[in-house]
Order: sequence, then structure tokens, then C-alpha cells
Amino acid sequence: MKKPTPFIPKWQNKAPEKGSFRSILKWGDPNEYKNPSMGFLNVIKQGLGLSDSDFKKMQKLGEEKIKDTRVSMISESAILLFENIVGKENLFVDTYERLKYSSGKAMEDIYKLRENIVDKIPDLVLHPRDKEDVKKIIGLCNDKKIPVHVYSGGSSVTFGLDCPKGGVTLVMSTHMNKMLGFNEKNQTITVQPGMMGPFYEDLLNHAKKKLGTKKRYTGGHYPQSFEYSSVGGWVVTLGSGQASSYYGDACDLVISQEYVTPSGSFKTHEYPGTATGPKVNDIMKGSEGCFGVLVAVTMKVFSYNPENSKAFTFMFPDFEKAAKAAKQICQDEFGMPSILRISDAEETDVAMKMYGLKDGILDKFMGLKNLKPGQRCLLMGKTNGEKNFSKNVAKQVKKICKKNKGLYLTGYPMKKWYKGRFSDPYMRDALNDFGVLIDTLESSVTWDNIHNLHKQVRAYIKSFPNTICMTHASHFYSQGTNLYFIFITNMKDIGEFRTFQQGVIACIEKNGGSLSHHHGIGRMMAPWMEKHLGKEQMDVLRSIKNHFDPNGIMNPGGLGL
Amino acid sequence: MKKPTPFIPKWQNKAPEKGSFRSILKWGDPNEYKNPSMGFLNVIKQGLGLSDSDFKKMQKLGEEKIKDTRVSMISESAILLFENIVGKENLFVDTYERLKYSSGKAMEDIYKLRENIVDKIPDLVLHPRDKEDVKKIIGLCNDKKIPVHVYSGGSSVTFGLDCPKGGVTLVMSTHMNKMLGFNEKNQTITVQPGMMGPFYEDLLNHAKKKLGTKKRYTGGHYPQSFEYSSVGGWVVTLGSGQASSYYGDACDLVISQEYVTPSGSFKTHEYPGTATGPKVNDIMKGSEGCFGVLVAVTMKVFSYNPENSKAFTFMFPDFEKAAKAAKQICQDEFGMPSILRISDAEETDVAMKMYGLKDGILDKFMGLKNLKPGQRCLLMGKTNGEKNFSKNVAKQVKKICKKNKGLYLTGYPMKKWYKGRFSDPYMRDALNDFGVLIDTLESSVTWDNIHNLHKQVRAYIKSFPNTICMTHASHFYSQGTNLYFIFITNMKDIGEFRTFQQGVIACIEKNGGSLSHHHGIGRMMAPWMEKHLGKEQMDVLRSIKNHFDPNGIMNPGGLGL
Repeated sequence: MKKPTPFIPKWQNKAPEKGSFRSILKWGDPNEYKNPSMGFLNVIKQGLGLSDSDFKKMQKLGEEKIKDTRVSMISESAILLFENIVGKENLFVDTYERLKYSSGKAMEDIYKLRENIVDKIPDLVLHPRDKEDVKKIIGLCNDKKIPVHVYSGGSSVTFGLDCPKGGVTLVMSTHMNKMLGFNEKNQTITVQPGMMGPFYEDLLNHAKKKLGTKKRYTGGHYPQSFEYSSVGGWVVTLGSGQASSYYGDACDLVISQEYVTPSGSFKTHEYPGTATGPKVNDIMKGSEGCFGVLVAVTMKVFSYNPENSKAFTFMFPDFEKAAKAAKQICQDEFGMPSILRISDAEETDVAMKMYGLKDGILDKFMGLKNLKPGQRCLLMGKTNGEKNFSKNVAKQVKKICKKNKGLYLTGYPMKKWYKGRFSDPYMRDALNDFGVLIDTLESSVTWDNIHNLHKQVRAYIKSFPNTICMTHASHFYSQGTNLYFIFITNMKDIGEFRTFQQGVIACIEKNGGSLSHHHGIGRMMAPWMEKHLGKEQMDVLRSIKNHFDPNGIMNPGGLGL
Repeated sequence: MKKPTPFIPKWQNKAPEKGSFRSILKWGDPNEYKNPSMGFLNVIKQGLGLSDSDFKKMQKLGEEKIKDTRVSMISESAILLFENIVGKENLFVDTYERLKYSSGKAMEDIYKLRENIVDKIPDLVLHPRDKEDVKKIIGLCNDKKIPVHVYSGGSSVTFGLDCPKGGVTLVMSTHMNKMLGFNEKNQTITVQPGMMGPFYEDLLNHAKKKLGTKKRYTGGHYPQSFEYSSVGGWVVTLGSGQASSYYGDACDLVISQEYVTPSGSFKTHEYPGTATGPKVNDIMKGSEGCFGVLVAVTMKVFSYNPENSKAFTFMFPDFEKAAKAAKQICQDEFGMPSILRISDAEETDVAMKMYGLKDGILDKFMGLKNLKPGQRCLLMGKTNGEKNFSKNVAKQVKKICKKNKGLYLTGYPMKKWYKGRFSDPYMRDALNDFGVLIDTLESSVTWDNIHNLHKQVRAYIKSFPNTICMTHASHFYSQGTNLYFIFITNMKDIGEFRTFQQGVIACIEKNGGSLSHHHGIGRMMAPWMEKHLGKEQMDVLRSIKNHFDPNGIMNPGGLGL
């Protein structure tokens, strides 16, 4: 008997039309696609109770053209003043540009675009050419009490780009994306905030050739949104890269910052350590455009020695043992792996299927070792740094994993994940086309609360029928880690999805997780901030906000301020 | 011919009388002394142009009893209110207590005590028993606009304890010195701020026995003032320990803090990393009592494995080569030594003489290797962490030092320094007794400015005749280090000394150093803050100050606020 030909959905593999909603909502390169593998598609079907027929009819694709209907609330005379600052070619009032530069990548952002909803957009989009432009814009906006928002990479997943009060959006990535200085002695680079991740990293990796340095460098910061994220965005949203366990979170990488605020401009000193009172450099990190506009940032750079890197993967009998091993890796003081990840049982099963490892030799071998689907958990990562250091980290990781019943699976699955790590977001669009909704929420957690938080949030998510919930921890500290929840549903109504997502946030908050580990606050978490930090701490942030921005023009409503 | 018996000064080796100025000014244990070795004494004589006769007559010793003359400016009725809060036994109005708890360890503090000057003291000394006492005291002081100061270890060298406007001083080390919690899973300890360094470290080192933990721990924080410094003091002044290059500065060790301020009380979350906006935990670090009173702090702890430690010492032909090696150690990413120090040529010569290494076999050997006095420079340190990690750090350090013409001198000099590292301050009293003045100033510096700052500040100090100036760097980062200047003079007039010291600060500031790397600001650096940070950044600190402390009662004038 012939095996039936497996059904493959007709994925929408063509570049979006110019001027369409789809051209805004689609992740990444217009010409690039990544469709779910058959393994992953089967996971989705099974998890969401869907059949082939659900993948035969596409949902709203957002292919409609955006009509230029919305009137700008900024007067013609004011627009002329902005034009005098940035030039006509750097000023846009058409709806397309205004929608584009206020759309992020949360599920709800994308859903709205598919529904052709034009909402919370600025009145005006400006592409400042330099710091002086920014100063003049902020001065003018402050005089006229016009709200100001900042856009660089556009990869916010927390409604960080919404402009509920209109105003202007400054796009930093168009012109303000240049290197301002490289100091090899101090191992620092100074860049404008709109420099994008890949350009930044490429410049550093090829510094010998491009900058005439003695060594090659890396920024050590690779968030999943790397390709569509900017250096400034990393800093003002307190991002973390996938290799943060070794290189540090964005906040650890910042040596100095220069800001333009309604109350004045300043640049902090470049000392790596000082005792001259509370550090304004720290106070500005994570300010999400609510205090002022970041116009330059000096970052630490590191030696680039990918040849020293060692990849590893282990399979543990359960999440408790994987977490125990990870905790010990963090606390044993042999240095940290750059990448370290542990996946819970559901994510592990999905990963096995996604990467075609399920039902293979590896799977059979694991069966023999009593590593059961639905229980077993992946730990993977890689090391960096000086050769012996890197080797010793890998050696100690191996020792600890073995002691905790981890089975060594070679570096292969890690390398496979590493290769595709930035392209996974493309798959979301493909699944969205058939009505499958995917989003994520993430939280910081101390070691003593990891299992409680994991269980409670998972239980909440799984209480919704036909929901996939994959969880991993990917940023590690001696004192704790983060939990990253990915949920997939086929709820038909965005209202239903919103209520569900709010429920997840409530569950995280209630069970001792932080509102965000590295996605920032945006307007998604803003309403929770007072409850989470308490009135006293919010009052501190409010007082700083009030100092910098007495007229409340800087990203109004951001951070809950 | 018989060698003449060397002259030995009659050091004042008796405990100060109770109630005397000397009992306040003397460093450390009343019964402990450390007199300069003959080698060190000869350095002083030679450097300051002194002879034996200068060490025959003692200067002012401050042995006079402190008279209870100064009247408290706080009314009897208000004193009764304070008494109702802390109890009679925890309230002092006598001049002795008021002077004791407002005296620090800057040269000028000590000089004033030797001169029997009673100045800038509080009106009242309170020893709060707990957080509730602090809350009530702050409430009362805020109502009555009474200035509040905080004292724990008393080792400030920047006039951090002065009370120029009187008011009350809260002594935290009397009662508020207890452990509040130990979380082995999270590797954190929560303590009251008045817990002293040695108690803290002893508790952690013996945690298995004293706290029933599985492992032994260390706090990793050992400032030179360790024995007379408190955990709270480390945090609010942004201190650094001698092993900061590995364990981090105090600011890196703080996981969470609890404060009582005139505007309310709060405790920050214990997440090791979050993205929930600017971190109030960071904003409070280094606030030096100007925003509120720290009442509890949660700190990271580390594994205690002294058996893994490796000591090393190298001699370099000059400071440039020593600094070059240190920079490479910081940038090569094999992990950091815990202690790392480089001494300039003058400090190296003094150290050789102090430790009796001058004119020994080692010295002769160095001569053969062309390591000349007046040029050669010491680099020393030790490693910590997991066994292989520690070993590899030592191995890489050796490799780098050799490449940079460093001669390996075994671990001996390092071990010798390590043993005496906390007792050196005792020598200052012995020398002060004969009119020799010693003080220090220190600064952060980036790698590209280390030699300029070193040369300029040294040139300024050495422009004063008969002045010793020893300099070292002792806290290391990939981006830079600190420079620590020790100056010894026999200026007869404290006014002259003050002008000189102000000149050093001006020279540091002018040449791109920070006002402080780890001594904090106090009232010594306060007048320089606006120039150093700029008006815009000072305005930020002022706005935060104003939020927490609208009546300006918290350490008024501290931080220049």
C-alpha cells in the first residue's frame, strides 16, 4: 500500500505588496520565509485540536493597502516648523508611515494589522539626522506640548511603540545609526542608538579590517530579535541577549549614555566603576523614552574568538533535575557558559519534533535510558572566552550535568538551534495566516521560586483547552534565572486572547515573578507596574519623570508613568 | 668598629584613656598597635627630610578628656519624644558620644581631634533597635525638621559623618547588626546595615556550622577598612573590596534593599535581573543617607574555597609595562583574579623596604635582571573560584606577565601583604604622633588615561617639597581601573594640608579622573560634584533628593545636595 502524500498547507511565500498592512506586520526581510516543518505542524495540529482542513483556508492576511485617511492633529504651521528642523525628506504625515513606525510585534499588534485597524498612531514621523535635530525637536515638542516617541528596530512585543496620544515618532535607525568612536584601549564602542544589531556585530567582528584594530571584537548581545533590534533599544528597554549569562544583560554592557531631555542634555562619564553617588547612567537604563531620547551610547566590547566556543546538549529525566544542574552551573564559580538554556518537558518534546529528532536513533537511545517524552528536558548551551577558560566551563558543565542524571547528546542539537535562532519568528506569520495565535511572556525568578512559578503559570495557560505552552529559562545568574513562556492557541477573538494574556500576566505577578525579565514594560505591562513595584517605588520613577519631562511629553503613559 | 644601635622612636603603645580625644581618633582596637618597621621609618625620614630628632618629641596626642560643654540644640521636650522611641539607654546627649559618632578617619578628622576641636557634631545620638524605631525617628525628625545622619563603622575618609547642621545621628552598629535571613538556594544573605565586616564574613565562612548550610560562603568584600566597616556602609557609599576584580564592587553585590525615608518605606524585589524600568535598587546605591536610611540589605554570597586560591607576584621594569599586563589580564577573558594590584615605582620601593626585601637576595637578583629601584613596579594578586578556574587564571596571569617582561617573584610578597593588609592603618596613628601626616585620595580612570592621570597627580603632589607619594591600582575592569594615591608629608599646619589636598582633588578632576572610585563623596568631595557630574546630572540627584526628603533633613549637604 502506498503511504498517503502528507498534506502541506499552501504557505503564503510571497513578499507583501508595498503599502499594505502585511508589509508592516510581516516579520523581517520581505522576501524571507520560514515555514513550520511537518513535525512542528503536527505538534500544532495535535496541541490545538486542528486538522488539515484548518490549514486549507487562510485567515485575514492584511494584504489590503493602507488608505491615507487619518488626519494629522498637528497643525500645518507646526509641521512646517518640524520641516525646518529635519528637512522635508525626513518628515512624513501619511498614514502608512505613521502606522509602520508605531507598530510592534506583539500578537495583538499583528492581529490589528490583519484586521486593518489603524490605531494609536503618531501624527507625524520624523527621521532626525543627528543630535542637534533631536535637541530642536524636543525643544519644539516641549514648547507645544506634543508627545514624543522613539522607534528604532520596531521589535517591541509589549506595545512599546503605541502613540495613544498621537504626537511625533522619531525614527532613529534611518540616520542616527552611525559609529561615533571606537576605543580599543578601553574596549568600548560609541554608537548612535539607531545602529542595528547585525551592523553593530559585523563591525565589531571585522574590526581589524573595518576599524584597523589589533583584535576582533563582539558586542556579546544577541536577543532573538537581533536582526531587527537596535543598540539603543537594547539599552532603553533593558534587553538581554541569548549569551547574557556570560556577557551580561544590556544594562551590564552600558558604559555611558548621552541623552536629550526636555530639561536639558547630558552625557555620563565613561568610568567602569565610580563612587560618586547614585549613578545617572543607571537611572536612565530602562527608561523607555519616558525621560528623554538616547542619542549616543558607549558599550563594552569583548574579544571575538568563536573558535574557542564549545557547544553542549544534555537530556534530563525531568525539569527539576535540569534546573538543579543549571543552578549549580551558575553557583560553582568556574565562569559561565555564554548560552545556557533549559526547556521544560513540553518545549523539549516540541523541539525534538521540530528538529526531526523524534523517532530517530537519539530518541530510541533516550528511551533505553528512561528519558521519557512528556518528562524529559533539554539543557543546552555553549561556552566562550579564552580557550582554556571555555574548555574548563564546558568540562565543568558536563560534570555537573552527568551528576544530575543528564545524558550527553553531543553539541549537535545546540548547533542546530543556534543556526536557526534568529529565523524562528518568521514561522509565526505562516501560522498566523491560518489563525494560529502565538505570543510569549517572560519573567524573572529567583531559584527558590522557579518551580512554583513554572507550575502555576503553566497550569493557568493549560487550563485553556487546546493550548500549547512551552517554557524555557535562558538567562542565568547565581541568584536565579528567567522563565520564558511561549503559548500557542487558536482563539478566534483577539478580545479572548487579550483576556487570556492578561490572565497570564496576573498569574506571573501573583506567583512572585517579575513583570518582565528582558522584554521591557511598554504599554502592556504599564498598568501592572504600581502593583508590582509598589506605590513608593513608582513615586520615585514619577519624580524622575517629572524632573526630566515636566510637561509629560516623553512617551506619555510608558512605564505606567 | 661596633655598628651604632639604631634609634627607635618611643611609640605610644598604650590604650587611650576612656573619654579622651585619643580614644576616638585612634584606629581600630584600643589595645592594638602596629609601628612602622625600621625600613619604613627610614623611608619616611628620607622622603620627608626628617632626622631622628624629629622622632624624639611627640606632637599633640589628643590624650585630653573631652569636656561635656556643648549644649544640645534639640529641646528637652523633643529629647523626651526620642527617648520614648528608643528608650533612655539608647539616647545620648553628652559631647563624647556626639563627637565619637560624627568623627571619621580622614587626616583632618584626626588632626582636629588631636587639637581638641569639637566641631560639626550632632545634638543627639540614638541607637535604634529596629526598623520600627527608625521609622518613628524619621517621622519625628521630618515633623520637627531635625537633620538625620547615619553611622555604622565610622571609617569614612571623606567627612561622611560630619553634622554641620547638628541634628541626630543614628548608630546602626549597636543593635541593627543582625542577620535577617539566609537563602542558600538563591545564595543570598539578608542583614541589617549595621552588621560589621568581620562578623558578616565569619558568619558566611562558618555557615555550615552556624547556619546549617550545605556549603561555606564568603561575601567577597574586603575593603581595607574591613574590620571597622559595615555592610550598610559598603552599599550606601559604593565601596569596593580588595577582591573586587573578581567578586565585584559593593554595588554589584546588592540584590535588594529596604529603606525608610521621609516619603515612605519600601523594599526592592530580589530578582537578579529584570526589565521593569529604571531600578530603584540602583538609584539608592551610593545615596549616602541623603535619601533615607537603609534598614536591610540582601547581598549575593559566593562559595568559600580558600584552598583553591593561588598567590602571585611579579616585578616589571616600569609602570607602563605593569599596567599593560594588568590591562591584558582584564581583557583576555579567562576570568579575573580576585585581588590584583599594581604599584608605581615609589610605592614599589617603599614596599620593598617595608617588607624587608630591599638589599636581600631578591633585590640582588632583580638588579641582575635590570629591574631598577625607582623604575621597577610590583604587580601582585591572587585567584579564587573553582579549582581549575583559579588555576587557569593564575596560569594566564603568569603568561601575560612574562610576555610583558615581568619577573616572577613567587607568591611570597603577596602573602606577606595579604597578612598585614587590614592592620596598616594602625601605623598612621604612630606616625601622626610625631607630626607626620598621611592621607589618601583615589579616582576611577579609563585605560587610555591611566598614565596621564598618574603623572599629573604625582607631579602635583611631588611639587611640594619633602612629600612621599605612593600610587597603586587595585580594582580592575576591562575598561579601566582606579588610581589610589597615598601621600605623606610633615606639613605643620592643617590649613596648609587642606589646601594641598584640595589641590590634589582639583588635579584629579582636571585630568579626567573621577572624584572617587570607592571612598564615596562625603563632604570632602561634595563641593566638587556639580563641576564633575555637570548641572544636568546633579539636577537629577536633586530631584530624587527632593522627592524622598522634601524638608532636606537627610544628611543635609551630603553628596553636594
